[in-house]
Amino acid sequence: MKPLTFNPGPSQLSSDTEDDIRLAVEQGIPSISHRSDAYRQIGFDTLARLRTFFGIPEHYSLFFTSSATEAMELVIRNNVTQTSCHFTNGRFSELFAEISESYGHTATKIAAPWGKMPSFDPALIPRDCELVTVTYNETSTGAMCRDADIARIRQATPDAVLAVDITSIAGMKALRIADADLWLFSVQKGFGLPAGLGVLIVSSRALERAKAVERTDNHRMGMYTFSAMDALARKGGQTIATPNVLGILLLGRQLARWNAAGGIAAKEEETRAKAKRVSACIERSAVFRHFIAVPEHRSISVACIESDAGWIAAMHRRAAAENIVLGKGYGKLKETTLRLGLFPAIGMEDVERLVHLINGCA
Amino acid sequence: MKPLTFNPGPSQLSSDTEDDIRLAVEQGIPSISHRSDAYRQIGFDTLARLRTFFGIPEHYSLFFTSSATEAMELVIRNNVTQTSCHFTNGRFSELFAEISESYGHTATKIAAPWGKMPSFDPALIPRDCELVTVTYNETSTGAMCRDADIARIRQATPDAVLAVDITSIAGMKALRIADADLWLFSVQKGFGLPAGLGVLIVSSRALERAKAVERTDNHRMGMYTFSAMDALARKGGQTIATPNVLGILLLGRQLARWNAAGGIAAKEEETRAKAKRVSACIERSAVFRHFIAVPEHRSISVACIESDAGWIAAMHRRAAAENIVLGKGYGKLKETTLRLGLFPAIGMEDVERLVHLINGCA
Repeated sequence: MKPLTFNPGPSQLSSDTEDDIRLAVEQGIPSISHRSDAYRQIGFDTLARLRTFFGIPEHYSLFFTSSATEAMELVIRNNVTQTSCHFTNGRFSELFAEISESYGHTATKIAAPWGKMPSFDPALIPRDCELVTVTYNETSTGAMCRDADIARIRQATPDAVLAVDITSIAGMKALRIADADLWLFSVQKGFGLPAGLGVLIVSSRALERAKAVERTDNHRMGMYTFSAMDALARKGGQTIATPNVLGILLLGRQLARWNAAGGIAAKEEETRAKAKRVSACIERSAVFRHFIAVPEHRSISVACIESDAGWIAAMHRRAAAENIVLGKGYGKLKETTLRLGLFPAIGMEDVERLVHLINGCA
Repeated sequence: MKPLTFNPGPSQLSSDTEDDIRLAVEQGIPSISHRSDAYRQIGFDTLARLRTFFGIPEHYSLFFTSSATEAMELVIRNNVTQTSCHFTNGRFSELFAEISESYGHTATKIAAPWGKMPSFDPALIPRDCELVTVTYNETSTGAMCRDADIARIRQATPDAVLAVDITSIAGMKALRIADADLWLFSVQKGFGLPAGLGVLIVSSRALERAKAVERTDNHRMGMYTFSAMDALARKGGQTIATPNVLGILLLGRQLARWNAAGGIAAKEEETRAKAKRVSACIERSAVFRHFIAVPEHRSISVACIESDAGWIAAMHRRAAAENIVLGKGYGKLKETTLRLGLFPAIGMEDVERLVHLINGCA
């Protein structure tokens, strides 16, 4: 019997996706040519459903990548020649800055300690920077920013390209796509699919910037220029390398179901209900507390709860005894926090099992 | 009923791999954390089985990538600062040169027309070049080089790093790994797995070269330095981005079966037998001829056959009527050639169906 997992990625697969995988194997989907009409239709369908689900304006392009990390890398390669600026408060927001640094750029960090929110004060952003990044939902700590923060940065920095990492929130929150140039995520979090596929949403402005970078002698994007990726994507989800045909099919099927069942608004409502249930339970707990102190900074998709190392270890043991996997705390928070992915594949009945476990520690 | 496909990648899945996918879904493999002991064991097992299967010397490192194209890109980023040299005779060997050019390098091509073999004369290689690339099996044309060609280049160019693309031959031919520094492939060809995973084999020399490049201000590898990839791989197949857990498991299971059943020598023997059967049939055909004129240059894994456009179209129609997919000719050869992947998932009984189809055109 496979466990129920609250790991915040790779995450629980839904039974619908399990069925999709079995059906895809029956139909021989992994063996179809990526140059065939059959694949092109899958690619077009998945792209169209992404547009519908996220409400992506017409002038944005959509690329398939192999991961969110690769998507971040492509953003740096295509949109930065010298300077970038990053709001950081955990491992993944810091990673975006590190990727820029690894290319030799000057990467300014507007940092907050893990568990806090950075000050989204546009005055802190260096005036000449080419790219600003925000991590919507910091998977390492469970901190979530607000749409208003993004809108404010966008308004105050009209010359910079704005990128938002939505890795562990995509599929669970309505987003204002027009408020940023680049949005990226991987599918093994909220979408509950096997790891190995990412999505990058690119505004026409970011695409034009990339073309300008391409015209310099920068040469850091190699073959992976936004313009080449865009031309391929428009031919039915083609990619520089052979596309992950199975992953793209599974994403499309998941989106078709979700679009037919209320879309992103319904998913946000479900997610908020689960977060509320877990949050209320934590607030009553004598043992656990929210790692994110300020309620409005708490993620709705990844709850991060804190206690002493003994209780954290006890929770992992108790969960294991019930065939439940809890997400370990990230890095330096491993011993003292738990992370609980409340993704769409986790139903309210699963949340009740979790609540029961938490309540058992008193 | 899904078709039998001779497409040279993505290729036919074997029924064993179909079973592996079903079992992995039952066991919840796509949902396990890539930081868990369970994943580390999968990673270690797959890496160890790759070493056994290919006979990889101890001092070579092994990295998982998302594709062969990404692996080529990583080779260029990590091992070239200015000049490279490429033996080319088709689309994929040319691609390696193009990737180097896309980074602003001087890429010398030692080219032959599509369907011929380049002259593997070491005297043609520029003396100062950092990297030499050979495409072992040119998937676009069905031309295959010889081990002696690679050994000769290696001996004559002791200062350059030598990379061999084995994308559509890996799993079907014994290779002398010690004769080159870098070997790369993707799993949707001979290994018959879903697209989205590649493997890069790296000698200690290539790793040291990458570290030297890293110490310059080149900065073109970003986070994807060989040294960072190596440190992660040694922790049980970890990768810069979240690894393709399912793909790595499927590759490991395929390798376990193959290692237990005679290893690479048995696979080569099977492949040669199928190639011989198809070749004999082509030689008797009044309609089709080998696209590769010289017998010893013909691939054992991808047969490329030529005729006029009418017969090629007729073969596709006749195959479709029997629920068989044939590989289309590549690019400019689309109308006048067929490509037939004779990969391990294709049994001799499948080859007989193909032979029957070919014999039917007379």
